[in-house]
Amino acid sequence: MTPDAIVVFAHGARDPEWARPIERLAALIAARAPGTRVRCAYLELMQPSLAEAVDGLAAEGVRSVRIVPAFIGAGGHLKRDLPLAVAALRAKHPRLAIELASHIGESEAALAAIAEVFAR
Amino acid sequence: MTPDAIVVFAHGARDPEWARPIERLAALIAARAPGTRVRCAYLELMQPSLAEAVDGLAAEGVRSVRIVPAFIGAGGHLKRDLPLAVAALRAKHPRLAIELASHIGESEAALAAIAEVFAR
Repeated sequence: MTPDAIVVFAHGARDPEWARPIERLAALIAARAPGTRVRCAYLELMQPSLAEAVDGLAAEGVRSVRIVPAFIGAGGHLKRDLPLAVAALRAKHPRLAIELASHIGESEAALAAIAEVFAR
Repeated sequence: MTPDAIVVFAHGARDPEWARPIERLAALIAARAPGTRVRCAYLELMQPSLAEAVDGLAAEGVRSVRIVPAFIGAGGHLKRDLPLAVAALRAKHPRLAIELASHIGESEAALAAIAEVFAR
């Protein structure tokens, strides 16, 4: 079931243009999930942080949120830091159902779709 | 037209597991492009480098190669360093046609496919 909100969570970078594909991905998700609030959030160097985004959604009265990590490879940030951050957010917002989705590189469907585009 | 070879080019990381989704993406591309050699290459912290991968393909007699940058956001590495590296490889291998594909985050088709997976 589609949650009330989806947060596309990406690494972030110094160059403001870096975020454009992340914002575009969020817009494409929003177009496919009418009625769902879709936000971007960043690990570092860009705003808002994941906690800021989730706090904001909770304050808006959202009851369920899916976090979609826009990462292909999974290093320490995803394997250690993100589950800890999600656990802290669940403790802070006990009435908010927070789902941590597979990251893009872990999703066979996403990888297959990407492969389809680049194998042509 | 599908080239003789495709190189999936990713950032790289210290954790060897980081590369698994990149290798999986390469395998999925290979399954969709029979007869095309598909290799991985990394910017840093992992082997082979892009130059090593392309040199190897040229030594095998490949005539055309597509480089697919497995990046979602595009920072300085993609915007400055990669075009320079590709120019150097073209100068080094004048008989090899080297195509630099859009990176994943720049491909509307790839982003739409990813959105489809995560909007459910």
